[in-house]
Amino acid sequence: MTELLSNYMAGRWQAGTGAGTVLLDPVLGTELVRVDATGLDLTAAFDYARQTGGRALRALSYRQRADLLAQVLAVMQAQRETYYEIALANSGTVKNDSAVDIDGALFTLGQYAKMGQGMGEQHLLDGPAAKLGKDPLFQSQHVMVPTHGVALFINAFNFPAWGLWEKAAPALLSGVPVIVKPATATAWLTQRMVKDVVDAGVLPAGALSVVCGSSQGLLEQLQPFDVLSFTGSADTAALIRSHAAVTSRSVRVNIEADSLNSALLLPGASRETVDLLVKEVAREMTVKSGQKCTAIRRVLVPQEQAADIAQAISARLAKTTVGNPRHESVRMGALVSRAQLKSVQEGLALLQSQTQVLHDGAAHPLVDADPSVACCVGPTLLGLKDAAASEAAGLIHDHEVFGPVATLVPYRDHGQALDLIARGQGSLVASVYGDDPQALARTALDLSACHGRVHVISPDVGSLHTGHGNVMPQSLHGGPGRAGGGEELGGLRALNFYHRRAAVQASTAVLQPLQVPASPSSAPSP
Amino acid sequence: MTELLSNYMAGRWQAGTGAGTVLLDPVLGTELVRVDATGLDLTAAFDYARQTGGRALRALSYRQRADLLAQVLAVMQAQRETYYEIALANSGTVKNDSAVDIDGALFTLGQYAKMGQGMGEQHLLDGPAAKLGKDPLFQSQHVMVPTHGVALFINAFNFPAWGLWEKAAPALLSGVPVIVKPATATAWLTQRMVKDVVDAGVLPAGALSVVCGSSQGLLEQLQPFDVLSFTGSADTAALIRSHAAVTSRSVRVNIEADSLNSALLLPGASRETVDLLVKEVAREMTVKSGQKCTAIRRVLVPQEQAADIAQAISARLAKTTVGNPRHESVRMGALVSRAQLKSVQEGLALLQSQTQVLHDGAAHPLVDADPSVACCVGPTLLGLKDAAASEAAGLIHDHEVFGPVATLVPYRDHGQALDLIARGQGSLVASVYGDDPQALARTALDLSACHGRVHVISPDVGSLHTGHGNVMPQSLHGGPGRAGGGEELGGLRALNFYHRRAAVQASTAVLQPLQVPASPSSAPSP
Repeated sequence: MTELLSNYMAGRWQAGTGAGTVLLDPVLGTELVRVDATGLDLTAAFDYARQTGGRALRALSYRQRADLLAQVLAVMQAQRETYYEIALANSGTVKNDSAVDIDGALFTLGQYAKMGQGMGEQHLLDGPAAKLGKDPLFQSQHVMVPTHGVALFINAFNFPAWGLWEKAAPALLSGVPVIVKPATATAWLTQRMVKDVVDAGVLPAGALSVVCGSSQGLLEQLQPFDVLSFTGSADTAALIRSHAAVTSRSVRVNIEADSLNSALLLPGASRETVDLLVKEVAREMTVKSGQKCTAIRRVLVPQEQAADIAQAISARLAKTTVGNPRHESVRMGALVSRAQLKSVQEGLALLQSQTQVLHDGAAHPLVDADPSVACCVGPTLLGLKDAAASEAAGLIHDHEVFGPVATLVPYRDHGQALDLIARGQGSLVASVYGDDPQALARTALDLSACHGRVHVISPDVGSLHTGHGNVMPQSLHGGPGRAGGGEELGGLRALNFYHRRAAVQASTAVLQPLQVPASPSSAPSP
Repeated sequence: MTELLSNYMAGRWQAGTGAGTVLLDPVLGTELVRVDATGLDLTAAFDYARQTGGRALRALSYRQRADLLAQVLAVMQAQRETYYEIALANSGTVKNDSAVDIDGALFTLGQYAKMGQGMGEQHLLDGPAAKLGKDPLFQSQHVMVPTHGVALFINAFNFPAWGLWEKAAPALLSGVPVIVKPATATAWLTQRMVKDVVDAGVLPAGALSVVCGSSQGLLEQLQPFDVLSFTGSADTAALIRSHAAVTSRSVRVNIEADSLNSALLLPGASRETVDLLVKEVAREMTVKSGQKCTAIRRVLVPQEQAADIAQAISARLAKTTVGNPRHESVRMGALVSRAQLKSVQEGLALLQSQTQVLHDGAAHPLVDADPSVACCVGPTLLGLKDAAASEAAGLIHDHEVFGPVATLVPYRDHGQALDLIARGQGSLVASVYGDDPQALARTALDLSACHGRVHVISPDVGSLHTGHGNVMPQSLHGGPGRAGGGEELGGLRALNFYHRRAAVQASTAVLQPLQVPASPSSAPSP
């Protein structure tokens, strides 16, 4: 039998008492490790994190906690090759795709370490004090204090590394202990990263825990000052939001769910701009086999350009070799599981009821992979024949196929394009391609109402831009409506979720000690 | 039959088709008016607000919308006496208590008009732009854009005036149309205020609507970009949070629910400070007959001082004349309804199972009011005999009696006091009384983790402070956990709820138009 990964809860390694769930190699179909969370004392684990971990973290300043993140980063960097091996085996991704997860995680961790080191030793104030009357002696000062609870993360399978650290970095920097429950299919990498941090002994006891396997019983543990961050399907999100922890105990929840992200080509674009769109769409469709919540699903182009663009994107996709990521010619590896492969195939069939196939992923031969075993599939571009068809096809705005699939959506005019995009009912990100800064700015502002991020590509930033789907720690990640309504990252904005805002109304004599460094004697780190 | 108040929806007055619910005078028991929402076309009404109201508001700048608030304020000021008459009849409050609601509403409206006028014509940016790489050409600028939906308010009975405007002022200033559903018992004042604004024609069509009566069917109307603000009981809050609008459509919700607010006297306080506590507790218990979500419910004092303080508070309470607010000697009027009176009596009986009565409200004779009709009751101070009893009595930390009732809670030491306060599981506000600025600052910071506001009273601000229970627009209103986890007011922070935050990643050439005034030609108002 394969190794049973242990859970780190209540400051010790605890194996589940059940048979466990096997994690598979999605290319070879081989068994890798097992995970299990049966029989754990969750109440003791959550209490330990809250009491021991929370107190220890809150006893440190922001700068000191930032130093801890820097130490965690050093541990991660030292084990980087191991993480690539686990990703290759368990996620079936080529090196470039593993990098999006692993190096993305390390970059984000490093950014929060750096931002936190700039925060120094003081309390976190929220704006200046405000007078509460004519006499300036009595004022209101808003403060941000770390919540006295635990942060539970229920994470998605596609980012076992980045999903951990993009959440844990701001939580730990805030002074809030973390319990992470990775998605079972790819839990190995998350578990290993936590294990390496625990083994290195860089974090206070109780600051970071991991539980692998079923999420059963976790939400029941949540108390009013805990927070919950979930990334995954809209259906599970609805279940989480309906739980008494949220409805009755006011546990703060961040949800990042489904999203039908768009790319929009403005009319009158230069050849260079059109090329940038084509390149970005093909890239977004194939990176991580399209298993990115930020991936482009709908490509809106002026209808008179649709045929040319379809051809250009298809030509790029045709060059994508698919199969075993261990083979040097392969550019795109596997989906995460047979279940996901089936879901993608079913979703494709559904969308094909209202669209045409412009480039057929099924026609891609698999390199060095057995189609009856490997969770591999080529990229498919769907399309609609004209603007009227785009209007009529409802499924493309409603059903996300979580794989290498996008739909080309011809539009008539700018207003229709915006209306079609809005039919996604809120998305994580839209990208806009054009040459006129004023038109791009206006469009970006229009799209801001239903997106958490708008990525604008013009020729001057063609070689500089960070990618439609790449989530930069400086920018907000999350979107309204269907996308779940959450907010992550965005620089220090990420800390808001882990803090409570309070107004302290007092004499300036009382406010003054809050406005100066809390522990000025702490030496800055080297 | 009494007058049936009409609903203003979809830009016209619409009477419900049912028999309606009668609103009563809680002192005299007489029938005043009726409300009814039967048979309204809610879908048309919500669409009208979203489309017509939303578009019109968003076409204006912040400054222009602030000017609208100033005009609304002028309408309110002109009708102020009418509002006092309605409050007297429908809420049974003495003039000073009506002022908390009415003048509080006008003050808040005026503050948002003023703040908004300072916002000018530009878009709302969220912080400076951040570089996304070494080359400074590609950057991320966070913007705040008004949500393209409607704001539905489901309000509480105790603040028909302030509850409307403390929410509507930031919503309208944000550019988001409002539909308000006041609590039925006191819906008259809200309806009249909306009517006066509509009659004056100061707001764009669809910007402000009112529906009185049942809330049935309202939540079903909510779409992903709408927001919902609820003030009321924790039970109703849980129902709202469980609704598909929230769980599946990610409608953003702000909840302000139950709260067991505390007042904490630090050890070693001067005579002057103790007097300030005594005065504030007696005031908080009796203002609006204790029907304030921010009222003091638990009074924590060093156990050796408990007896003296009990006597001092009781002496003040004994002087409170209760009864018909039309009688000049009366200082405290009625509860809002017989249902609330019953609820207070039942709650008192429950708390008395674990406490002693230090001052008995039932002993107060009613002035000019029939006890079998009037919803009047005197103020009651409960108490515990020592710190051990405070620890043992669980109900006082769990059950809010929404009337002129508080419990004196003796404590042993500072740590125990904080633990007892935390057993409220999150409250709107705590006040702290002491003489040492350092100790007050430390305590305020400790209390910030489980309160939305901490009100610190020291002798230097004895005559300046704005009151434990008074909600100032400059300060956050809302609290974590049991208090619902909401955030209202806090100056311009209130606008966050009505905006979507988005990161625009673009060339600085594209960001530049976002960073300058949107309509610089608009003339400033005189």
